[in-house]
Amino acid sequence: MSEKIYTAALVIIGDEILSGRTHDKNIPYTAEKLGAAGVRLMEVRVIPDNGQKIIETVNELRAIHDYVMTTGGIGPTHDDITAENVAKAFGVELELNKAAYAELLAYYKDESLITESRKKMAMIPKGATLIDNPVSGAPGINIGNVYVMAGVPRIMQAMLDSIVPTLKGGKPVESRSVSADLAESYIADGLSAIQDRYPMLAIGSYPKYQNGKFGTTLVLRGIDEEALTKATQEVADLVMSLGEKNPIIA
Amino acid sequence: MSEKIYTAALVIIGDEILSGRTHDKNIPYTAEKLGAAGVRLMEVRVIPDNGQKIIETVNELRAIHDYVMTTGGIGPTHDDITAENVAKAFGVELELNKAAYAELLAYYKDESLITESRKKMAMIPKGATLIDNPVSGAPGINIGNVYVMAGVPRIMQAMLDSIVPTLKGGKPVESRSVSADLAESYIADGLSAIQDRYPMLAIGSYPKYQNGKFGTTLVLRGIDEEALTKATQEVADLVMSLGEKNPIIA
Repeated sequence: MSEKIYTAALVIIGDEILSGRTHDKNIPYTAEKLGAAGVRLMEVRVIPDNGQKIIETVNELRAIHDYVMTTGGIGPTHDDITAENVAKAFGVELELNKAAYAELLAYYKDESLITESRKKMAMIPKGATLIDNPVSGAPGINIGNVYVMAGVPRIMQAMLDSIVPTLKGGKPVESRSVSADLAESYIADGLSAIQDRYPMLAIGSYPKYQNGKFGTTLVLRGIDEEALTKATQEVADLVMSLGEKNPIIA
Repeated sequence: MSEKIYTAALVIIGDEILSGRTHDKNIPYTAEKLGAAGVRLMEVRVIPDNGQKIIETVNELRAIHDYVMTTGGIGPTHDDITAENVAKAFGVELELNKAAYAELLAYYKDESLITESRKKMAMIPKGATLIDNPVSGAPGINIGNVYVMAGVPRIMQAMLDSIVPTLKGGKPVESRSVSADLAESYIADGLSAIQDRYPMLAIGSYPKYQNGKFGTTLVLRGIDEEALTKATQEVADLVMSLGEKNPIIA
């Protein structure tokens, strides 16, 4: 019986990424954290601050993945529209969440400081639970298999760290790599033969071009450790047979 | 009569991004280059090296955007499957492209060095044109409104630079920003009022958290320069009225 593979999608909500102004830092962190927990990141979408697009994207992805993570759009300003649209995606209302309001009150001390904008951060889809925000006032939200997180990397990371232990995952994918100062076209035929012998592994070839020289990193990924070890040795032997004297194996 | 808005989607094809191993550098470059040419990047998808997923994604996005750019998967190795699946998306065959083959021959000098793997780089969807690769052997491909580029940033950038002048775009979106050492919840109410007065602009609020201090960058974007200038002044006045002494206006 083959083991269930747990999958996730990440939805990055933010005009600032699509304009090129902000460079994403949330993809690699999410990929690595989920991967270590045995959940495979299968897809990332970067979408604008547009309600209809958020609804469509969340609904499409939550139907086909075990988990959907979103980042961005949970603050107090007019462009923070994630919570209301995730609520719409689930067909539920927003409601003032008592725990979230209590957190706001603890943060601002004085009820008169909780303006309508700030109160928005305590408006949570009905039936959702909160994800603690250890840095600022706006909590994250979990509803169904969807996890709504902040966009600011430091806050997103803290939220994801608290979510990950609650997720059910499979066996983590392990990876090995072999780096060589060879252009990938030299390696292609031999590599393809190794891939054919190890169908349980995914073998990727990643060319580099630095200081006028070609190099290639060959990455082997899979959950079968014995196959990984054997195939990695075969890849190392291959690049040495092609003239690489010191392949870097990691 | 309102001007046509030209839109694009970027499809990043690569297990290496989804595993967290490689950090994407192609989103901001693509966003900025297209933006300057009056083409708005509306969506980015990162998908695995999976043929069916490539076909579905390319077909979905090419129907709704003026342009679709892809990065990754155009080399000689077994995991380079972009060209064959873009061909399938268009329902055409791959064929040996004479110009691409001539480039390979010029690169490798000797026909006997053009192995089956290398020859793959000259197999192009029927009806496609080539995008010059000034660095390595594998050309990019343009078919219909789809542009297939390399994943290595330096090569992708060279390809995009040669594509952009051929694209039809609208008026480029201009942006201004105002940065303040204020948490965004202080600014939210006033900012929302400014957004209401300038519906032709998109005003975004981007919180920062550095060295234990909150800050916010307010970004105004649009094609109406007069409105941009006026609204930027209003945002600067707003943050100064809230106690910010030296807003950084850019």
